[in-house]
Amino acid sequence: MIKVALDAMGGDRAPRVVVEGAAWASGELDCHIVLVGKERSIKKFLNKADYVKNKISIENATEVIKMNDPAAISVRRKKHSSISIGIDLLKEKRVDAFISAGSTGAVVCAGALKLRTLPGIERPGIGVVLPTLKNPCMVIDIGANIETTPRHLLHYGVMGLAYAKYILGRHNPSVGILNIGQEESKGTELVREARQLFEKTDLNFIGNVEARDVYSGKADVVVCEGFVGNIVLKVTESFAESTSALLKQELTKRLLPKIGAILSLPAYRAIRKKIDYSEYGGAPLLGIDGRIIIAHGNSNAKAIKNAVRAAIEYVKHKINKHIIEDIEKINV
Amino acid sequence: MIKVALDAMGGDRAPRVVVEGAAWASGELDCHIVLVGKERSIKKFLNKADYVKNKISIENATEVIKMNDPAAISVRRKKHSSISIGIDLLKEKRVDAFISAGSTGAVVCAGALKLRTLPGIERPGIGVVLPTLKNPCMVIDIGANIETTPRHLLHYGVMGLAYAKYILGRHNPSVGILNIGQEESKGTELVREARQLFEKTDLNFIGNVEARDVYSGKADVVVCEGFVGNIVLKVTESFAESTSALLKQELTKRLLPKIGAILSLPAYRAIRKKIDYSEYGGAPLLGIDGRIIIAHGNSNAKAIKNAVRAAIEYVKHKINKHIIEDIEKINV
Repeated sequence: MIKVALDAMGGDRAPRVVVEGAAWASGELDCHIVLVGKERSIKKFLNKADYVKNKISIENATEVIKMNDPAAISVRRKKHSSISIGIDLLKEKRVDAFISAGSTGAVVCAGALKLRTLPGIERPGIGVVLPTLKNPCMVIDIGANIETTPRHLLHYGVMGLAYAKYILGRHNPSVGILNIGQEESKGTELVREARQLFEKTDLNFIGNVEARDVYSGKADVVVCEGFVGNIVLKVTESFAESTSALLKQELTKRLLPKIGAILSLPAYRAIRKKIDYSEYGGAPLLGIDGRIIIAHGNSNAKAIKNAVRAAIEYVKHKINKHIIEDIEKINV
Repeated sequence: MIKVALDAMGGDRAPRVVVEGAAWASGELDCHIVLVGKERSIKKFLNKADYVKNKISIENATEVIKMNDPAAISVRRKKHSSISIGIDLLKEKRVDAFISAGSTGAVVCAGALKLRTLPGIERPGIGVVLPTLKNPCMVIDIGANIETTPRHLLHYGVMGLAYAKYILGRHNPSVGILNIGQEESKGTELVREARQLFEKTDLNFIGNVEARDVYSGKADVVVCEGFVGNIVLKVTESFAESTSALLKQELTKRLLPKIGAILSLPAYRAIRKKIDYSEYGGAPLLGIDGRIIIAHGNSNAKAIKNAVRAAIEYVKHKINKHIIEDIEKINV
């Protein structure tokens, strides 16, 4: 049975929400979950939860890395943190995957320190699956690495394509480079050089993808440097939240629009389901010799449950094996 | 009377929409408009329009730079294009401002070639006013310059603050640097060094602004390099369009949500007005010795009319004079 370690202390509403998500997953998914964190806190919430007894266990971790802790320093100092111990479990192959909704910086840092990158890969990248008008699209990297070279972008492409093919089920998925225009001459040196690298390969490379094409679903995989990717993700979230707050405000101001909103509820719910990150269950840290899923800090129990599902898929579909083979093949 | 040159050939639906916008502006705003472009085409639409006769004139320009023309080359080759001639009018002080909804690259390029930067400014930046949950926020640069240095970012800050103060009417406006975290240590070398520069000044600098804070309205001015800024803008547009397409689809699928949507129409319209770029009337190219407003390629007549309004404000409030004074003051 696949074993998944879950950082019980990570996320805005940890450990409660993480424990609830684990309990939910134990009933629905075929795996064993190791909750990593302060045993007493975990037990307190686990005792209240409805879960499958023999599918959840606890690994005690006495320290917690907080969201605002400086990542590199706290990973080195807090050896007994849930993030450190979770990744140790992964390293020792006592679990198949590790999930955290805690500090992304700390998870990336601990992952890089304790685990090697896959053969041929220089830097890991975080890939996030975004909903689009067509199929979901993986944007990679969204912040694992901010000193990006053209080769890193190429490797992100290979990793994202493996994910799109085997997990998102795309046949012959396409990859593009996020850029400010279609033309070859557009953009920074980084993206121009990356384009040349991609063109030397047999990958299904469609050239530059403009930001406006991300959500129209032009490419299955969009590569970008971590700084830009992080901003794409956060700015979308921020815009979505602001607009939905505005919409709520306007809809409830007067009676008729309010009644209208109630009648329209099923449509709003359908949209919400489509664009809700909790449906997608976290972002894989691709390129390291281990399987790590980074969940949103704001994850609810459902998002945690779906992150466990994503981890299981990650293991089952042997993504890392495919990445190693595909990197060898491109030979650039 | 303030004189504004308007590129009649620029934008997806030029010259019709531009001429309609000019006609509208002639009735509402206190200025004279010079329509620059193919005289016969302009006259054709102008004859159908309802406008104030002595407030609109035509300056013939026989060539057109198309959206997909390579910017630098076409500016040099097409000396009789509406963009080239419009900026010539500006240079010769025959008009006070120039507006184009045509190729941004060509406008920036022609502006940089024909006009000098303001004293103390190394590179111009395009600032765009975005709606937020609080006050509108200027994001600068959104793509005039993609080889950005820390000093450029500092200058963008000074320029954006002048705009926020005198045009957006903010008292003691604040400026932040777009970054992937709050902490000083976060982000690329560019933003870390820019932060140090800002901290040496007396500007109302609030440090790093995360992408998620842009639309919550944390800062009045957000500076970033052009590549990132362009992507922020385009990704938001793309997400807004995709989501509203999805919403429409869902709302019209079944009868009750559809009736609901009709009842809610006033609320949707209020939101639309708030987040509609056409209300904001284009983005100033700040930092050059001349006043250029870049309108959205997809501008409708109202957006053009509002761009004329923005140009008039730009002239009236002597933004360039303020920028020169403020750059001198910071002395970094």
